Amino acid sequence: MITSTSNQKIKEIVQLQKKSRLRNERGVFLVEGLRMVQEIPAERIVQLYMTEEFYKKKGKALTVAMSPELVTPTVFSYMSDTKSPQGVLAVVRQSEYRAEDLMDEPDVHLLVLDNLQDPGNLGTIFRTAEAAGVNGVFLSRDCADIYNPKSVRSTMGAIFRQPFVYVDSLPDVIGKMKEKGIAVYAAHLEGARAYDREDYRGRTAFLIGNEGNGLRKEVEEMADVRIRIPMAGRAESLNAAVAAGILMFEVSRQRRE
Amino acid sequence: MITSTSNQKIKEIVQLQKKSRLRNERGVFLVEGLRMVQEIPAERIVQLYMTEEFYKKKGKALTVAMSPELVTPTVFSYMSDTKSPQGVLAVVRQSEYRAEDLMDEPDVHLLVLDNLQDPGNLGTIFRTAEAAGVNGVFLSRDCADIYNPKSVRSTMGAIFRQPFVYVDSLPDVIGKMKEKGIAVYAAHLEGARAYDREDYRGRTAFLIGNEGNGLRKEVEEMADVRIRIPMAGRAESLNAAVAAGILMFEVSRQRRE
Repeated sequence: MITSTSNQKIKEIVQLQKKSRLRNERGVFLVEGLRMVQEIPAERIVQLYMTEEFYKKKGKALTVAMSPELVTPTVFSYMSDTKSPQGVLAVVRQSEYRAEDLMDEPDVHLLVLDNLQDPGNLGTIFRTAEAAGVNGVFLSRDCADIYNPKSVRSTMGAIFRQPFVYVDSLPDVIGKMKEKGIAVYAAHLEGARAYDREDYRGRTAFLIGNEGNGLRKEVEEMADVRIRIPMAGRAESLNAAVAAGILMFEVSRQRRE
Repeated sequence: MITSTSNQKIKEIVQLQKKSRLRNERGVFLVEGLRMVQEIPAERIVQLYMTEEFYKKKGKALTVAMSPELVTPTVFSYMSDTKSPQGVLAVVRQSEYRAEDLMDEPDVHLLVLDNLQDPGNLGTIFRTAEAAGVNGVFLSRDCADIYNPKSVRSTMGAIFRQPFVYVDSLPDVIGKMKEKGIAVYAAHLEGARAYDREDYRGRTAFLIGNEGNGLRKEVEEMADVRIRIPMAGRAESLNAAVAAGILMFEVSRQRRE
């Protein structure tokens, strides 16, 4: 039982909660709460921490082939990112995908995120992408970190299943998509064409921009078509996760028809 | 210039930030930031607070027929709900709508929210509803407060324009909708029919449930049809704001066709 917050392992966890760079150096991220921990693929769990109370009540229901490290409630509160910690936290190995592999499915459906900043939005987009059958999410290096604890929570488990990759140059990646015959649509407030007038049954990629500023010029220029979501009232724009959801589910709708 | 955080007006603002009940007693809510303050209908501004710096730089650009009360930066930080306050805050009169009036448009498009808890989600739903041309949002009394500062921010201004009403009994209100010939659809994970197989060109209302538990039985039972959003992968559900967005924009799509 770990009883001190100055324990070296606990200190490392606190750093992993805060620092994106350390998570990437170690190749891990943190997952909290019973529901999320249950969804982790067993082979990716590196370490498991529980309070004694959690272990007695629910720990045995977790079918993980690894004995947990027990910690006191005080230590757990200290290492947790949440206000009301449940008493279970896992250190999980990050996934690795190659950009080329994500483009290679026959009727590929892709999402490209340019400088998305809100961690909650980003997690929600992953959750929605999995549900819409997206094959891969491509993120510019300056997007929020999907392994941020708030993003991980917002994915509701999609983080373990939705393929994604951070890339250095979105224009390069989009260029490769076009070589493979993927139609590239930029979501744009001034897009000439309504999003629901396009045919998404073939290979499709959407470009989604930053919450405040939209797509960078050099990214937007790579698109084949600029599309807009027609809006009523005096609304100027939609939340990025909602806009992405409407586009992704339009693909899903057309493909089911 | 107000220089002390123990000034009675400042104390009242701090209470208004925190307490839903006080906001409702006073019939007001708070709005921060240049962009949001610019969208307030002039006749609804009750009081305006600014730092001297904000007033000099941007205060005159605000075309509001009211001289602001100036406060020191320390006092402003104390009264603000945000981490990096911009230096402008308005006390705004709440709107009042009657449930019956919101149902009376010819091809009405309504949203009914049952025990929605996340303030950010709620604000995002208002923002999306305005953009989708929703005529009215009906909320159960135990939903989050749309006048919560976080909700207000998430509406991005829709709070000033999107008609809505909190009601004591959703089943009673849904009953009235049905009397008026409005088709009532319950969004449900186990809905028998895909959402995009229905015709929403006539009078339409959607019922959206709590983030974790969905619709209460007595609310769901009032629906004419249970619809689901078909999902791929192992996703169990969508974020409430994303799900509501997909449904509302399916209405908008069908009506534009």
